[in-house]
Amino acid sequence: MSISQPAREPLAGLPASVTVYEVGPRDGLQNESTVVPVATKAEFVRRLVAAGLPAVEVTSFVPAAWVPQLGDADELLAALTGELGGVRHPVLVPNARGLDRAMACGVTEVAVPASATETFARRNLNRGLADSLTMLGGVVEPARAAGLAVRGYVSMCFVDPWEGPVAATQVADVVARLLELGCTEISLGDTTGAAAPGQVSRLLDELDSRDVPTSALAVHFHDTYGQALANTLLALQHGVTTVDSSAGGLGGCPYAESATGNLATEDLLWTLHGLGIATGVDLPALVATSVWMSAQLGRPSESAVVRALAGTPA
Amino acid sequence: MSISQPAREPLAGLPASVTVYEVGPRDGLQNESTVVPVATKAEFVRRLVAAGLPAVEVTSFVPAAWVPQLGDADELLAALTGELGGVRHPVLVPNARGLDRAMACGVTEVAVPASATETFARRNLNRGLADSLTMLGGVVEPARAAGLAVRGYVSMCFVDPWEGPVAATQVADVVARLLELGCTEISLGDTTGAAAPGQVSRLLDELDSRDVPTSALAVHFHDTYGQALANTLLALQHGVTTVDSSAGGLGGCPYAESATGNLATEDLLWTLHGLGIATGVDLPALVATSVWMSAQLGRPSESAVVRALAGTPA
Repeated sequence: MSISQPAREPLAGLPASVTVYEVGPRDGLQNESTVVPVATKAEFVRRLVAAGLPAVEVTSFVPAAWVPQLGDADELLAALTGELGGVRHPVLVPNARGLDRAMACGVTEVAVPASATETFARRNLNRGLADSLTMLGGVVEPARAAGLAVRGYVSMCFVDPWEGPVAATQVADVVARLLELGCTEISLGDTTGAAAPGQVSRLLDELDSRDVPTSALAVHFHDTYGQALANTLLALQHGVTTVDSSAGGLGGCPYAESATGNLATEDLLWTLHGLGIATGVDLPALVATSVWMSAQLGRPSESAVVRALAGTPA
Repeated sequence: MSISQPAREPLAGLPASVTVYEVGPRDGLQNESTVVPVATKAEFVRRLVAAGLPAVEVTSFVPAAWVPQLGDADELLAALTGELGGVRHPVLVPNARGLDRAMACGVTEVAVPASATETFARRNLNRGLADSLTMLGGVVEPARAAGLAVRGYVSMCFVDPWEGPVAATQVADVVARLLELGCTEISLGDTTGAAAPGQVSRLLDELDSRDVPTSALAVHFHDTYGQALANTLLALQHGVTTVDSSAGGLGGCPYAESATGNLATEDLLWTLHGLGIATGVDLPALVATSVWMSAQLGRPSESAVVRALAGTPA
């Protein structure tokens, strides 16, 4: 017999509500090898919105040569015209060209990628850390001038595979710079999934000591080493109220060495709802969405809750 | 690139060391469908001990008709004669007959199964809750009189599939009764894996209010809904210093509706070592053991850390 919902037992000192920021259509699909048709992506986004998610990152305006899976960004937004009025629906833009394309589609929020480490900046953003931040300034400033909200992603906030553990002060410097540039929200990324809870606590303490309000922060954990929910709990205890996750844990290949799946939204909801924290999301509707999406991808969900509640699609 | 160990970043208020109580050979294998030869089981236990685990629950003296997988308990202990002197190596005994068999094998510690709920007692122990505790008294008393340590397992401490959420006071009553009977350690079991962190906190508060020392407690989480490590973190924050887990997450069928896998020891070690909490366990040696055991069982490990560090056995 499976149990369909968590027992509700609040814990003192946690936020009353949390914004679940859904990254499945972008960070999830970008790491899936199966190419998903644009109509399926549009339906996925519609179902996520219908399940009550307040923020859905829809796609990325990167050159199709970099991320073929998301080469249909303009087409996808066109398919969703007029349907996303009630929810935040940011798109990732890595550069000025991406911003132009996104604004031509009428988006009201964009996200920009930054790195906490020099090595990852060079490998992922093709320039040094300082240069990459300067370049992002050329995206954030016109976006803010046009009235858009801008989320800044900081990758490799905890353990870089080349540089090792990342100093909290180094991450905080990047966060401070992104806020100076005009970012309205900063997502702290555990890109490798190797963060330990003490690191999360240390970084949030460091940001607090610099007067960065928790309302400007989000946490973004990958579950590669199974640590995402423990780290999320620590972040909630520090007052963070925006948590990134991916429906069904999309974005990780189950048995590959390089598994880098995002925290599954359903597993996050089990924790949050169990703690009596309001999210506005309908868990059964989301599970049904992930079961449907698993069938489109032809593989079982990585979410423990989806597995427990729905088993595998036949 | 995978990262082979967590960054060490202590968190204030947590224990300096934790006893990792390994249940793979018993609670793990008992739920695996592949029958494992006794020589393989003995080798598994030897490798766990060699990896530094301070407590390994070796097997269960239940009638072979109930749990065929563990029908070789006497033979297994005979195969390990003289090899387990340095570590706790309890065996589960459900009744007086099991205790007799265990004592004939020279064990120094046994574990007895109790239930926090009436329904699970009737379904799993074949008698009502009060009767089952009385019956356990007939096991605990002679075991203690013979100088054995006795661990009491309390199943269904959080969410019972038939009765729903379980009141902390009801669980605490069972814990108190087991301590009265003479149990030396109580393991609080999240048998369904559905516990939410607030429930864990509530139960530990209730036990604290009854002056049950945390040194007499262990937590035993299943990862069915992905909540085990978040719940473990809460337990550590409450001062619990013994945590049950299963090498490689043995005991769960990956894609079945009834998946009930134990928390994987490797995932637990990642958290503990990252927090600077001493365990005495060698993580790489344990990962190698789980990779070896996965090959014996013919299926990949359920542990995220094992997957990340070792991939799947070919």
